Amino acid sequence: MSKAQGPVIPHPQAQTIDEPARVEIEFSPSGKIARVPLGVTVFDVASWNALAVDSTCGGHGTCRKCKVQIVSGDIQPGTADARAFTEDELEQGWRLACQACAFTNLKVNVPELTTRPKASTVGVGRQVIHRPTLLKRFLQLPEPDLVDQRPDLRRVLDGITDMTANVDPMVVRTLPALLRKANFEVTAVVVDDVLIAVEPGDTSDKLYGIAFDLGTTTVVATLLDLSNGMPLAVASMLNMQQQYGADVISRISATMLDPQKLFDLQRLAHETLDQLAGEVCDEAGVDRLDVYQVAVAGNATMVQIALGIDPEPLGVAPFILAADEYPDVRAHELGLKVNPQARATLFPALGAYVGGDIVAGALASGMDRDQRVRLFIDVGTNCEMILGNSEKLLATAAPAGPAFEAASIKCGMRAAPGAIEVVKIELDSVTLGTIDSKPAVGICGSGLVDAVAELVKVGLLDESGRFVTDEAAKEISLILADRLIMRGQERVFMLTSGQDGENEIFLSQRDVRELQFAKAAISTGWAILLEEYGIEQKDVQQVLLAGSFGSYLSAKNAKAIGLVPNIATTRILSAGNVAGEGAKMVLLSGSERNGARSLTKLVHYVELSEREDFNDRFVEELAFPV
Amino acid sequence: MSKAQGPVIPHPQAQTIDEPARVEIEFSPSGKIARVPLGVTVFDVASWNALAVDSTCGGHGTCRKCKVQIVSGDIQPGTADARAFTEDELEQGWRLACQACAFTNLKVNVPELTTRPKASTVGVGRQVIHRPTLLKRFLQLPEPDLVDQRPDLRRVLDGITDMTANVDPMVVRTLPALLRKANFEVTAVVVDDVLIAVEPGDTSDKLYGIAFDLGTTTVVATLLDLSNGMPLAVASMLNMQQQYGADVISRISATMLDPQKLFDLQRLAHETLDQLAGEVCDEAGVDRLDVYQVAVAGNATMVQIALGIDPEPLGVAPFILAADEYPDVRAHELGLKVNPQARATLFPALGAYVGGDIVAGALASGMDRDQRVRLFIDVGTNCEMILGNSEKLLATAAPAGPAFEAASIKCGMRAAPGAIEVVKIELDSVTLGTIDSKPAVGICGSGLVDAVAELVKVGLLDESGRFVTDEAAKEISLILADRLIMRGQERVFMLTSGQDGENEIFLSQRDVRELQFAKAAISTGWAILLEEYGIEQKDVQQVLLAGSFGSYLSAKNAKAIGLVPNIATTRILSAGNVAGEGAKMVLLSGSERNGARSLTKLVHYVELSEREDFNDRFVEELAFPV
Repeated sequence: MSKAQGPVIPHPQAQTIDEPARVEIEFSPSGKIARVPLGVTVFDVASWNALAVDSTCGGHGTCRKCKVQIVSGDIQPGTADARAFTEDELEQGWRLACQACAFTNLKVNVPELTTRPKASTVGVGRQVIHRPTLLKRFLQLPEPDLVDQRPDLRRVLDGITDMTANVDPMVVRTLPALLRKANFEVTAVVVDDVLIAVEPGDTSDKLYGIAFDLGTTTVVATLLDLSNGMPLAVASMLNMQQQYGADVISRISATMLDPQKLFDLQRLAHETLDQLAGEVCDEAGVDRLDVYQVAVAGNATMVQIALGIDPEPLGVAPFILAADEYPDVRAHELGLKVNPQARATLFPALGAYVGGDIVAGALASGMDRDQRVRLFIDVGTNCEMILGNSEKLLATAAPAGPAFEAASIKCGMRAAPGAIEVVKIELDSVTLGTIDSKPAVGICGSGLVDAVAELVKVGLLDESGRFVTDEAAKEISLILADRLIMRGQERVFMLTSGQDGENEIFLSQRDVRELQFAKAAISTGWAILLEEYGIEQKDVQQVLLAGSFGSYLSAKNAKAIGLVPNIATTRILSAGNVAGEGAKMVLLSGSERNGARSLTKLVHYVELSEREDFNDRFVEELAFPV
Repeated sequence: MSKAQGPVIPHPQAQTIDEPARVEIEFSPSGKIARVPLGVTVFDVASWNALAVDSTCGGHGTCRKCKVQIVSGDIQPGTADARAFTEDELEQGWRLACQACAFTNLKVNVPELTTRPKASTVGVGRQVIHRPTLLKRFLQLPEPDLVDQRPDLRRVLDGITDMTANVDPMVVRTLPALLRKANFEVTAVVVDDVLIAVEPGDTSDKLYGIAFDLGTTTVVATLLDLSNGMPLAVASMLNMQQQYGADVISRISATMLDPQKLFDLQRLAHETLDQLAGEVCDEAGVDRLDVYQVAVAGNATMVQIALGIDPEPLGVAPFILAADEYPDVRAHELGLKVNPQARATLFPALGAYVGGDIVAGALASGMDRDQRVRLFIDVGTNCEMILGNSEKLLATAAPAGPAFEAASIKCGMRAAPGAIEVVKIELDSVTLGTIDSKPAVGICGSGLVDAVAELVKVGLLDESGRFVTDEAAKEISLILADRLIMRGQERVFMLTSGQDGENEIFLSQRDVRELQFAKAAISTGWAILLEEYGIEQKDVQQVLLAGSFGSYLSAKNAKAIGLVPNIATTRILSAGNVAGEGAKMVLLSGSERNGARSLTKLVHYVELSEREDFNDRFVEELAFPV
């Protein structure tokens, strides 16, 4: 079970920290529990967890429909709440979910939907009007006679009075027998103005889509009821391709050494996608055959491998995509055993390392619609960034390396139960938070950023990233200096004692260097984007930290180590799984899909490896801000 | 080997007839021999036999390019010839092929093409400008580098500078490896604005299409070089579905009794089409994989079976088509082992019994372009008719029954070697012409029409279709009266003596009735069309007899028995295999294909079985004209 799905149990240590990095929200009556970064709205958390909350305004506090009841935990009513509720209701904990930012653990009661929603709020405050390209029409057709000899297909098309559709040739094959067996009462299934199926009887209430975030590490699926836009289930699992290496380069290498491996990897991608499809359908009690459309947001390598396209040109200079925009394919070509006629939409890409996942994230973040200049960062082995606003957008990808996945970190581990993800260092104490409050097993990416930031804060790491001398450490704090010891040839800082059955977990000098390299690559990336854009750090009005890793970073510590521009911490936001949100959006709305396509034309890609000044600037960026 | 392909050897008897019904044209240097109805132009015969003759004017005698040399046989030079040639040339037999109507046997020398033709004359004097939707472009693409990181697909699409193309998803799969192996020198294959393939190197001179006339009895294939519109080979064979019955109704019945039979029939159609594809490719030395597009003109039943669509609703009232217009399918879905990405265009249909073959015929006859009011008749078991001009078109289908296929005729046979196809009866003699001049085996449809017409002419059959009494016969001619004898319970007219090893072939009273029924159905059909159109027989300015059977009818005798309106014999023309010609046209020109589609919207279908007066009028039409 992954973070995306919860439930996650809070750890007592975190509660003792003055500013907890995570809060837990428990929803009733569903029983779902989510552990999320501080300050996220209840509305967003519900949306990320496939819980439908009424809304028509897009989370701006104006429609006053997203009413939830805060059963425990503290949320002060705001201006919008005061207008939306009576004093009695406010007393009983009623709040607008879109205004309710979680700064403490919460228990939230979500009322049943009272209206059939016409829009959903997804991504970062994006309001999406429901205009899915998947439509069904129940048709009660007149039976043919000698006066009305219209061909079967014509009869069906004439019956669809509110649109004109092209026809998939497969539909005609079974049409004559089907129409007569069903006494000319059938349901037409149309995707993107193409009649893809005709079904006997009235099946018009059964139309589902699945949005996939096909990540290198984690794959997430959300089942959507496209009759009302409601998310019904979310599931996630590790990409089965993991056995071929943690990052895209190792998977590309595998195919280069043995071309047959491409098809092994393709099969593993298909199995991953199909298993998730099965899980979300099972959870929601939906028949797989009623899924007619899927959307897949993935990086370029994941998408090419899933389609069986040789990824080699992505892995070697000059880093060339097979295609930036794909025609829709059949879902079965991605190994999905859903409706045989189901269509799959693949996100367009900006470059070999700014793939469909990033375009989906940019879409979900409204990068092309917001007048504020914003910086979108998907933190990971390869770190993609987009800077700009509705006027102008620049993108780049920086080779951050594996530090955030913690693969190259001595005591590193991926974000799994027992991973240290929160570190608080005071002169007299070290406090750790682990995922699921399990005994600490290792340190994951967000814990690494915390640890380094805190060590810089107390002065045990200097600006250059070097541990201070033992003497200097003792001057700072005897308690902390005790933890600064040698392990093998290296100086390390002990996060745990390693005694009394505890695992020994430490941060080594080399670990710090790994993180410095990663953060330098990233900050060089956005620094070059800022320069190309002609603005400075302070002009960035919002930073969005995206991706399964970025969303869990502490904004304060990300800023402390210089991973993000130096702006007010409140302007640095967790964006959640925006790639998955983008995938949901294109299922909910055809115009959003067009938006994704036009995004690729709006964004100008800046290639870093071509720049002569990259290495110089990279070295400058290695240091931590003072 | 069928009529469509020749060679056919003339029979001595025919030469003795004052007006021979067939002439033979032998072409050099190809050596092809064709036997054709009287009065057809050399140009048309060459076209039907895949012999390219220069032309740009569409057979109107104005471009003066279609020069051929009449080596033997007689063709008087006309006005256009006098302008086109010197006296010496005329003396040497040079004529314009489009003006040279064959009324005697001919030997014709066809010079090599001097120009790359930009247009072809096909069908009934239709001039088709070459604008195939199959196009190839050889691309020498710049190799990618860090400055030019365009995706592979974008690079290819950018390289196609003269059009914008959509993309078949399959193309992308192999593109990265293919481009690099071919050093970015590739050929793009585009059909209908869709990039269907990218091939290594320059293959731009290899682009072929096959036009199929998928008949219930006979299937004809013409291979076209779509780089210049030239026909390269023609082949024909019996539809392998014959084992399931001679007509569409028996084949539909087979599928109704056992649904599995649909797939047997489908397989047989596929095998027939594919065998012909192999034959034409072999004959022309063309690689099957270089065939990217096919067009199929067939009646509704043949098309539905070939696609695996249950034909039952076509066979029972109210006679409903699965579709009047099909989206393009892949050629491999028709069993064709040509290029795996090849597309197949299927002609739209007007009704269950006015199928794509008739639409193809109407297209090839220019029914929608000619200002003259014309009547197009495809004579067969089911007889389709279209009446009108560019202003207004009416169509219907008449159930003529199997008389013309000769299946219900005592000594009947289909048009194969040894079939009597020409009958001449004088008071003192009976002269027969057989196909390939083989000893007479039976009588085929055109022979039947001839025989009945001649018997009416000499007076042995009265207006009502009854053989006259023996006494009356003797008054007419003792020689002929000798042939009017009893066979079993029936009076018959002996065509052969049945002695000296000769086969006994006769025409029975019931045979005459069968033909009367057929002709009455047909003439009732066009009489109703004339009435609906508000015109009379004399207003019909041209009758086109189409189809493998209709084209071989004697115009004079068709008129004599009332099968066609009573207009000047010179206005009654053999149109040849117009369905196949229509199929060629849609390969040669995308706008002709659009024309076929719009034809279905122009033509109003008149359902005969719905008319209360049909039976009355049918009975009236049974009589022969006096």
